[in-house]
Amino acid sequence: MNIKTRRTEEVISSRNHPVIKRIRGLQLRSERERSGLFTIEGVRFIAQALGQKVALETLLFVPSLLTNSVGWRLVQEQKRAGGRCLEVTPEVLHSLSLNDDPQGISAVVRQHWALLAEVEPSRDLCWIALETVQSPGNLGTIVRTSEAVGAAGIILIGDATDAHDPAAVRASMGAMFSQRFVRTTMPQFLRWKQERHCSLVGTSPSASSVYHEVDLRAPLVLFMGWERKGLSDEQQAACDVMVRLPMVGKSDSLNLAVATGVMLYEVLRQNSELQNAKL
Amino acid sequence: MNIKTRRTEEVISSRNHPVIKRIRGLQLRSERERSGLFTIEGVRFIAQALGQKVALETLLFVPSLLTNSVGWRLVQEQKRAGGRCLEVTPEVLHSLSLNDDPQGISAVVRQHWALLAEVEPSRDLCWIALETVQSPGNLGTIVRTSEAVGAAGIILIGDATDAHDPAAVRASMGAMFSQRFVRTTMPQFLRWKQERHCSLVGTSPSASSVYHEVDLRAPLVLFMGWERKGLSDEQQAACDVMVRLPMVGKSDSLNLAVATGVMLYEVLRQNSELQNAKL
Repeated sequence: MNIKTRRTEEVISSRNHPVIKRIRGLQLRSERERSGLFTIEGVRFIAQALGQKVALETLLFVPSLLTNSVGWRLVQEQKRAGGRCLEVTPEVLHSLSLNDDPQGISAVVRQHWALLAEVEPSRDLCWIALETVQSPGNLGTIVRTSEAVGAAGIILIGDATDAHDPAAVRASMGAMFSQRFVRTTMPQFLRWKQERHCSLVGTSPSASSVYHEVDLRAPLVLFMGWERKGLSDEQQAACDVMVRLPMVGKSDSLNLAVATGVMLYEVLRQNSELQNAKL
Repeated sequence: MNIKTRRTEEVISSRNHPVIKRIRGLQLRSERERSGLFTIEGVRFIAQALGQKVALETLLFVPSLLTNSVGWRLVQEQKRAGGRCLEVTPEVLHSLSLNDDPQGISAVVRQHWALLAEVEPSRDLCWIALETVQSPGNLGTIVRTSEAVGAAGIILIGDATDAHDPAAVRASMGAMFSQRFVRTTMPQFLRWKQERHCSLVGTSPSASSVYHEVDLRAPLVLFMGWERKGLSDEQQAACDVMVRLPMVGKSDSLNLAVATGVMLYEVLRQNSELQNAKL
């Protein structure tokens, strides 16, 4: 590891170093909103970010914890790109990490928001609209499935849900770097949907149509409701089609990420059959 | 609330009371295994347990936290049934709770295991076999979806996965009380599957068949792999059919509970179409 011997930069060993304090602040949503930044941890996530040409504002690393060569390559890549690269002590990294066993590398990344006006749903399989997602893990899992089926991304209506919560980022398993995110309000969203002539499909256990008997051809926006209460009456009224996932047991609801996954795979199935695509 | 004035029993106010210490011990898997007990929290879960005729070994309640009448009805029901009912202080309940905001009621419940020899897969839509589930939340979510589609329950192979982990119980949203659970070993499982002539279906991203193009008629056991590495080569070799969920993005895997949900809904879809059932 030549890089070890070649390094000349100072090592940050204080948890109270101003840069470290600023990064630690990003654990709070308010600070993420203010700065437009968020953090990612671990070799896999950082490799995925770089693979998607996401610039790292700052990369932090701990040589003694960086046991695998991929991690070292990421440090080198960041240095080559002229990006900020800070060596820190294990204690400093621990003070920033939400993992019990950090992998010796983490990074600060700029949030990237697309504008609703630039979204053309006819170009994509589908988009997912969400207003309130209580569990950031569910949100991240939805992003992960969205990427897997080739959907475009997430339209967040209102500001109840934080797409850059560390638990959401982690559950997305890196898929968030290739998905697009849009923030909007309900009136703007409805105006946009009208102009783009795309179908807004919502789910509710009381809908009369079963999800796989309904036409889910693109362009399509899938509108998924809050974990606790699903889509409100107003949200349901805004949908062009309401469908239900049959529930034959005693349950009256599914996990939100599971319900979204079943819907997204049905969208993929119908659209692939249409395109006669070999998947 | 007449019950408030009618109570004469002593109130347990010490976290170190022997009964409370024994219940707190159930936070450890080893103690759950040894005793065959586990704990549930909150009005919803306890109502569901009683609704499924699951006897509560002990019910704990805190009058000042029991703000809704359903909670009081559960206490009365337990008393009427002659079950143990202990009033405790808020501090004692907090010391047992995994929720920041406990609802004033929790209970100790006996684990219920079915015997593999008694399982007749031809009577059910399907069973789910699991060997290693890393996240108890994923396990509970799988149980919840299994109940929703009308599947029978979970066959746990080996002892890597704890079905009664509090996070699994919570994620099941009460579905675990109407699902059956079986513990077995891989050789016993394979012998049973052979004798019962049911189809063992596994998933892998490298399988050549797409999940919805394969016959998923009952009797069926769905074999889902570990979050990290999926089904091992040996596990895949034991399957009668291997299918894949198409992934058109950069992802090489899905969340385990999402993948299981998509599979279970396809099983339900195919079998309902067969039965021409109106769902």
